[in-house]
Parts: sequence; C-alpha cells; structure tokens
Amino acid sequence: MTRLYNDPASFTEDMLSGFLDANAGYAVGVPGGVVRAAPTRPGKVAVVVGGGSGHYPAFCGVVGPGFADGAVVGNIFTSPSAAAAVSVARAAEGGAGVLLTTGNYAGDVMNFGLAVEQLKADGIPARYFAVTDDIASAPVEETAKRRGIAGDFTVFKCASAAAEAGYDLDGVVRVAALANENTRTLGVAFGGCTLPGAAAPLFTVEKGTMGLGLGIHGEPGVASHDMPTASELAELLVSGVLKEKPAGAGARIAVILNGLGRTKYEELFVVWATAASLLRAADYSVIQPEVGELVTSLDMAGCSLTVMWLDDELERFWTAPADTPAYRRGSFIDTPRGRRSTADNADPGHPGDPVIAGEAARRCGAAIATAMHAVSAKMLAEEEELGRIDAIAGDGDHGRGMVRGTAAASAAADAAVARGAGHGGVLEAAGDAWAAQAGGTSGVLWGAALTAMGSRLGDTDIPTDTDIVAALRAAFDALTRLGNAQPGDKTMLDALLPLIEAAERGESWPGAAAAAQSAAEATAALRPKVGRARPLAERSLGSPDAGAISLAMCARTVVDTFITEGAHR
Amino acid sequence: MTRLYNDPASFTEDMLSGFLDANAGYAVGVPGGVVRAAPTRPGKVAVVVGGGSGHYPAFCGVVGPGFADGAVVGNIFTSPSAAAAVSVARAAEGGAGVLLTTGNYAGDVMNFGLAVEQLKADGIPARYFAVTDDIASAPVEETAKRRGIAGDFTVFKCASAAAEAGYDLDGVVRVAALANENTRTLGVAFGGCTLPGAAAPLFTVEKGTMGLGLGIHGEPGVASHDMPTASELAELLVSGVLKEKPAGAGARIAVILNGLGRTKYEELFVVWATAASLLRAADYSVIQPEVGELVTSLDMAGCSLTVMWLDDELERFWTAPADTPAYRRGSFIDTPRGRRSTADNADPGHPGDPVIAGEAARRCGAAIATAMHAVSAKMLAEEEELGRIDAIAGDGDHGRGMVRGTAAASAAADAAVARGAGHGGVLEAAGDAWAAQAGGTSGVLWGAALTAMGSRLGDTDIPTDTDIVAALRAAFDALTRLGNAQPGDKTMLDALLPLIEAAERGESWPGAAAAAQSAAEATAALRPKVGRARPLAERSLGSPDAGAISLAMCARTVVDTFITEGAHR
Repeated sequence: MTRLYNDPASFTEDMLSGFLDANAGYAVGVPGGVVRAAPTRPGKVAVVVGGGSGHYPAFCGVVGPGFADGAVVGNIFTSPSAAAAVSVARAAEGGAGVLLTTGNYAGDVMNFGLAVEQLKADGIPARYFAVTDDIASAPVEETAKRRGIAGDFTVFKCASAAAEAGYDLDGVVRVAALANENTRTLGVAFGGCTLPGAAAPLFTVEKGTMGLGLGIHGEPGVASHDMPTASELAELLVSGVLKEKPAGAGARIAVILNGLGRTKYEELFVVWATAASLLRAADYSVIQPEVGELVTSLDMAGCSLTVMWLDDELERFWTAPADTPAYRRGSFIDTPRGRRSTADNADPGHPGDPVIAGEAARRCGAAIATAMHAVSAKMLAEEEELGRIDAIAGDGDHGRGMVRGTAAASAAADAAVARGAGHGGVLEAAGDAWAAQAGGTSGVLWGAALTAMGSRLGDTDIPTDTDIVAALRAAFDALTRLGNAQPGDKTMLDALLPLIEAAERGESWPGAAAAAQSAAEATAALRPKVGRARPLAERSLGSPDAGAISLAMCARTVVDTFITEGAHR
Repeated sequence: MTRLYNDPASFTEDMLSGFLDANAGYAVGVPGGVVRAAPTRPGKVAVVVGGGSGHYPAFCGVVGPGFADGAVVGNIFTSPSAAAAVSVARAAEGGAGVLLTTGNYAGDVMNFGLAVEQLKADGIPARYFAVTDDIASAPVEETAKRRGIAGDFTVFKCASAAAEAGYDLDGVVRVAALANENTRTLGVAFGGCTLPGAAAPLFTVEKGTMGLGLGIHGEPGVASHDMPTASELAELLVSGVLKEKPAGAGARIAVILNGLGRTKYEELFVVWATAASLLRAADYSVIQPEVGELVTSLDMAGCSLTVMWLDDELERFWTAPADTPAYRRGSFIDTPRGRRSTADNADPGHPGDPVIAGEAARRCGAAIATAMHAVSAKMLAEEEELGRIDAIAGDGDHGRGMVRGTAAASAAADAAVARGAGHGGVLEAAGDAWAAQAGGTSGVLWGAALTAMGSRLGDTDIPTDTDIVAALRAAFDALTRLGNAQPGDKTMLDALLPLIEAAERGESWPGAAAAAQSAAEATAALRPKVGRARPLAERSLGSPDAGAISLAMCARTVVDTFITEGAHR
C-alpha cells in the first residue's frame, strides 16, 4: 500500500516538488506539469506526454534529451485538465509545433483533445495521439477502443526520437502511429495498489489467482487464471502477444517486460529467462530488451509483456540515445543544461474582467454560488462512498475528482459573484474552474455542462423553469457531444435525462431530482460483467455508476438549497 | 510477496540467466557470478562486489564501465561461497589486482576473506573491504560492527571510479575506506518481503508502526515507531543521519533516498521534498542526489536515507560517469563491447585425483557417506522449521542453506567413496562441497569443520573414540578461529562444545548428542531483545539459535545412523 504521504489531497504536488528537486538538471516545473530544463531546440517538434500520475517513471521520468520535451502531470490515475496540457505544451513548444500523446483513456482523450483545439486557436500547430497497445481491453476488430499501458513507452520513445531527429510534426505523428500499430501489450495483475490515504486497495485479486488483462487502474480484464509458475506466465504472455503479430511485420522486435511496482526485478528476470527463449524459438531477434519498471501503478503487483515489431525506422528510434531522469541509454551529446525561465509559462487562468449584471441576476448568481457551496460540502461528505462505487468498475478516483471540482467551482463562483456576475457568469466561471482544476473525465464533462448552462441562461432575465430546463438540455447536448455516448451507456447521462424529462413533464424540482436518483440507482445496479473489458462508451462519460449517482446527489443538493434559501420556488 | 518463480531452489540461477540475457551487452556469466562483457583494461584494478541476491540492482546490476568489474552472486540473502568469489575475481582481474567488497555480514566477511587468501596464494594481489554504513546496527563507538546497507552503493561507486581513474590497489582500498568512513545510512521498514516459495513474510511490522533501523533481512532494529507522515519520516531520517556527521566533514554531500522494493517512487519523491529542504536548511549542498531503488530487499516495504560527506576526491568519483545495466550517469566513452571468452574462467572445483585408502578405511568412509545422506534427508525434513527459528533473529535462510550444504556434501561424499577415499578423504570432500555450494555463514563454517575433522582423522587407521573426540576438537578450533566467537555467544559452538565435553567424560555417543540437543534448546530459549541490534558475535557463527539446533540435529542423526548401520558401536 501507499504509506508515505502528508495530505493525500496534495500527494501529486508534493511528489512533483520532490521529483523536480532531485532532477533539477533535467526538468523544471510549469503550471500543469514539467518541461526539460534546457529550452526546446528552435525548429524541433516538441513531444508532450502525459496522463494521471502514479505510473512513475511514466510520465515525468522520461523528460529529457532524446525523449519527451514535457509531461503533463495529473493527479493519481486522473487525467490532467485541458488547461494543464495547454500550459505544458506552450512551455515546451519550440516553434515547430507540439505532439500531445497519452494512453487511450476517455479523460485524457477529452482533455488533451480540447487542449489541441485551444493551442491551434492560439496559432500553435498541435496534434494529439492516443496509444492503444493493450490487447486485452478490446477485440482486435476494435483496436481503437483499446487502452494504452506499457506500450505508451515504446510509442513515446519512438515519436520523441523522431522529433529529436528533426522530423516535422506530420512526420512525428506518423512515427507515433507507426509505433502504435506495431506495439502490443498483454498484462497480468496479482494484487491492487492502494491510493494515498485509502484504507483498502483499489481492487483485489483472489488469492492464488491472477487477472489476465486487468487494467493498470483495476479496469476489468479478460479472464481470471490460476497463479502460474514464472515459465507458464512467460508462455502465456508471449503466445498472447505474438498471436497479434501485425500483418507484414518482420522478425526484429523491441520488447519490454514491465513490472507494475510490487513485482520485483528478480522475478521479472526469472520470467524473462523463459520469455526470451520462447521469442527466439519463434525466430525473433530481440533488440535492446527492457526488463524493469517503466510504467507502474504505485505498488500494484503484476507485470506485462510489450512487443513492438520493428522496421528500420522504428529500430533506429527505439535504440536512439536518451538521457532522462529514469531512462538513459547510449551516449548523449548533452544539450545545454541552462535552466530556462518559466516566468512566461504562467497559466492564463480565468479572465477576471468585471461583468456587472443586473441586481436580480446578481442575486440569482449569488444563490447559485450558495448552491455550489452546498454541493461541494456534499461531495466532501460522499467522497469515500463515491470512490467505493467507482472502484467497482472504474479507477476509484471519482470521489476525489468531484471534491476537487466542486471546491474549485464554488471558489470560482464566489469570485464571479464578487466581480458582479449574474447566474450565467457564475455558472461559466464555475464550469471553467471545475474543468481546469479537477481534471479527469468528470472534470472536463462537468465543466462543459456548467459552461453550456451558463451561456444558455446568460446574465439578463431571471431564469424561468422553462429556461432552466432548456439550460439542462444544453448541458445534456454538450455532454453527449463531448463524451460521445448515449443514454443507456451507464453514464451520468442516465441520471441527467430522467431529471430533464421529469421537469419537462412539469414535475416539481424535488420530484425531478428524485427521478434522477432512482434512475442512477438502477444504472448502478448493472455491474460490468467480470472477465470482459468494458466497451469504451461505458468509460467515456465519467465513471459508470458513480458518475450517475454523483450527478443525482448534486441535483438533489441544489434543489434542497434553493428551497431552503427560498431563492427559487 | 515474491510470486513469480519456477523451482524456488533454482530462483537465483533462473534470475541470473534472465539478467544475463537482458544485459548481454554489459555482463557475461562466470561460475559464481558475472563480469563485464568487455575484458578488464590491462593494468586496471578490478573491483568485485557481491553478497546474497535479492537486492537488485545490487549487485549484478552495477557491473559495467565506471562501476564494478564483477559481481559475486549468492542465493537470496545468502553470502556466496569463497569458491564463487575466487572464480569471479579470477575472471575479472586484469593484472593489477582485485578489491573484493561487500556489506559487513558475517557470511560475506568469512567467504570473501577466505577468497582473498586463496587469490593471494595463487599470486593474485587481492584485498577485501566490508561496508559499515548502517548507524542503527551498532553504536558509534563500534562502527566496525555495523552492517552495510544502501551505503554499499556509495562505497562501491567511489572505489570503482577510483579504479577506473587508474588508482592502484592500495589507492582503491584507501578510497573505499574513505567513502565508508564518510557514509551513514538510517533505514526504516514497514513490512517484510517474502522469499520465493515461502508462505509468510520473512518478518512483519505491526500495523500502523514502522521499525526504525530494521535490517534489510529483518535483523532487529533500534526501535518501533508509530507510522509517521512523509515529512515526519524525512525529519527523522535527516536528523538521525546528520547526528553522525564525521569529524571534519564538509558541507557537500552525496545523498541517496533508497526504496526497498514496495515503497514506490512517488512516495520517495514526497519524502525527498522535505528531506532536501531540511538538508539545505542545515547548509548542505546536495550533489547528484539519487531517489529510487538502488539496494532493495525483494518486495520489502521501507526506505533509507544515505549521506556521504564529500571531499574533492570523493565528489569526483561520486559524479564520475557510469554505464551499467541499472545505473547510468553521464556520457561514457564506451569501452569495447566484444564478449570476452569465459572458457578459462571455469571453477577449479574439487580435485578428483583418485586416493585409494585401505579396505577398512574405505568401509569407514562409506559409512560416513551413508550418515551424510541421512543428515541431508533430516535437513530437508527440517528446512521449514529451521527457517522459522532463524527468522526470529536471523534472515530466515538457515534451513535452505543446510539443505543445500548437506545435499552437496553427501553427493561429494559418494564421489569420494567411488574414488576409493577413506573416512578422512570423504569428510574433506564433503566439507569442500558444503562450503562451495551452500554459501552463507553456515556453509563456510560447516565446510571448515568437516575439513578439519577429515584432515585430523586421515585415511589410515580406523578412528577410535579418542580420535573422533580429537577430530571434533579440531572442528571446534576451526570454528572459533574462523567465526571469531566463543561459547556463550549463542552460536553452533554452544551445541558442539557440550557434545565434545560429554564424549570426553566418556558418555555414550547418544548421550553426547542428547547433551548437544538440550544445550541447543537452552541457547534457543534466549531470544534477542527486540529494539536493539544484536552484537556481532551473535551474527558471526551461523544464525543464532538455528545454528546450534541444526548442529544438534545433525549429531543425533549421525549417531543414530552409525548405530543402525552398525558401522560404529
């Protein structure tokens, strides 16, 4: 379990400051993450990797010459926000554009996708690429739905080396895609890790068994297996990965036998002894194998085998020198180590131009701020329960994300009220802050929902029930668009839609909130079947079950507050 | 726990073959361990590190340019044999002599000490140095009794860099001593590791507490502590280590925050954030800090802080480039990577020259071989129990060591009988094989004891009781000489001496064996006090308690066999 922390809520910030202190020669901190200590060579494409933390050396551990130019650092197992990705990309890019790349997780896809849009809007050429190496997470016909696990490493390494070699942005993206197409990973888990401050592991694996294809955050795998010997495991992993040899792939392969944290070097070497002989027996030449901890999950017990089939180009990039805090290969001609100024990397943050709304609208905005405080308090009270529900099918971080998001939103709402904003401005400010500071899937979604409501309502007239229902519809549309999911996909939509429909039927707001509540509980009752990976839709809108339940909680809290405050009905 | 293995008995061999396969560019295997893939530069002093395995990257993970020339690889947490150390040193040395260095553990001190004697006898200049950085293992006025833990890394690194810089053997030994005098480590443990195939951890730490100064094999620490926050732990470690600042030490320090296996990188960085600021607040400049896993104990939970106070010479060697499987710093001018021939590195092994003894002496030798088989079977039956007893105060490997040693000894005894050896030759052959293949403290001691008995008895006359008692005295003398301990130190001597004295009083052999048995049980009843490090004497002859008990078991088994076989009395 994770035993060493101060305030669990600041674990990532504390970790990052220790990392930066110990690796000052390699990296400097910027809002949202880290960039190389030496400025990006002008004209060199910047490669910015990222995702939630808890996977060291992924991702900040590979920032340095020959590898990444920057890393966006989210909270443990939580996607960083779009604002964080924009901030790191701005700091890293050297005039030739930036590739943002992560594993294929809904939160990362959404936040980094939004970041690319913002960077382009600012005139910075930007592209996003999501790694999909985990063969257990979706069938071969649906590779686009696969997760990114240890294959992040081969793809990030090759794309970074291509950028170092002077490829332009299209070329770097092409190499990333080529590496990803030729990379396959199969992993197993023997036991779950424990989040800082949590009382129990994120997930457990039945004693004497292992989860085949179990995700690095405990996402369901494809099967449960009796605990094998080291040789049997090697056979299982090698045969599983080789079954997916890409069409036309050759006989030279890069291989990673990756430990997830608690499965140690000696054990990995025992497994490797068999794996290597099996790969050679299959007539493969193994190029610069890596046996160790490259993409971990805190102290999770388990390991994975990654194979990247090489052509000459990929082999050149796989074996290219790199000099980073956690990964050093070959002799690197040191780039200047002068610390770059980080002054101009500050996060633009929320524009504070005063917006003076009418008296009534300001009172309405204040009421919304009050409701946001109540919602924030409610989420704090329910954090553990939401985490428990989320851990059943998700990565257990939903409670934490809702707490961070609602806290940021209510602070921003207060600031907006102080600026003289009305209900619309307050909602927009709250939404921006939620997305920027909560990160994760729910953060970006809730942010979009509140912002959509705010712009639909505006700051002029006092909203009628019809206006509110229309605003909720606008939020619903924003969610479906951004999350690429439909009602019935076991997401927060399954609580929001019943709420809207009840209101449209003219039910009282308490009645509508109750409808959301019972719909959410019905959703939560459907558990993902053990032994199959969840389809992407289930993962695309917040955490299944938990996302719907927290939405219902928030709706109930808002309605109760408005009733108590007499602000509405 | 350690989950991935094939046959636990071959774990180290399997681990080593995987390691060598994955790091073929760096290291090649030789009997007893590994050496650099490229031959040692003629005229360069060779530095050979070692000790038991289970501590990766210590010790084979640091073999390469700028660091060690070779590593002697023992079984998990067990000293390699003197023969293994000689074999690796022979393969590594390049004409300018060899420094053998390990942490200060009784088994390593004895085996590597014997190896140095053998190398010198063969005309190879050789020296031995034991690292004593663990401030918790003995008071400051008894630093020579301290264990070597993560400080192995700073001492090995500086000595290796000195050798790389062209220092002669005396100079390399001086640097090793200088680095050791200026290195202090304080460690904590939160939970024990589990040996391959074992059902339970080697040791446990009470929930919500940590063991301060607990050894990396579970050796007792100085105190039990409530589980602190990361910052509190940083304060505890920093203040504890700085308290021992060497006289005249300066303000520049090398620092290692070392994870033991299950305490992960993110946690270490959180601790480092506070530790670094405390060190700077104490006006220290931290030179190239290392935060990560450098000296582990399988999946043990815990960490340690190492500080090496630097002068210009040590700073140059600490920051010198190195290029090894697990540790790479700076840009190293690659030494030729040609694989060296390992043909001429074969272990000399046991000379097989036929020794034809008299008919009666050969019968007597056969009877001893039969007894060795019975002893081997007995140890196999008692392996777990001996491990359990040993784990109370030692590192839990005594049962395994006795099984390996007696198995090797009985096989060698058979071979000697087949060669026509008598009782003396059989005992000598059994002793050599025991020491060479069991390793550890008990291996070298039992080997010396049997060899001493064999040479005292010779192969001519059938031994009388007087001869046997004299042979036992010779064994006793060899043990006290080699182990530097006395009766009453809670060692195997406490069982052997009562056996001898009973026989000298003319008691029957069963009576003498019974005397050894009850004396051993009396010894075992004295447990080391929790919360204090055991004096070296307790660690110097096999494992306390277990060593005496296994000796009594062996004596009883031998006597019973002789009685059943009618070979004697």
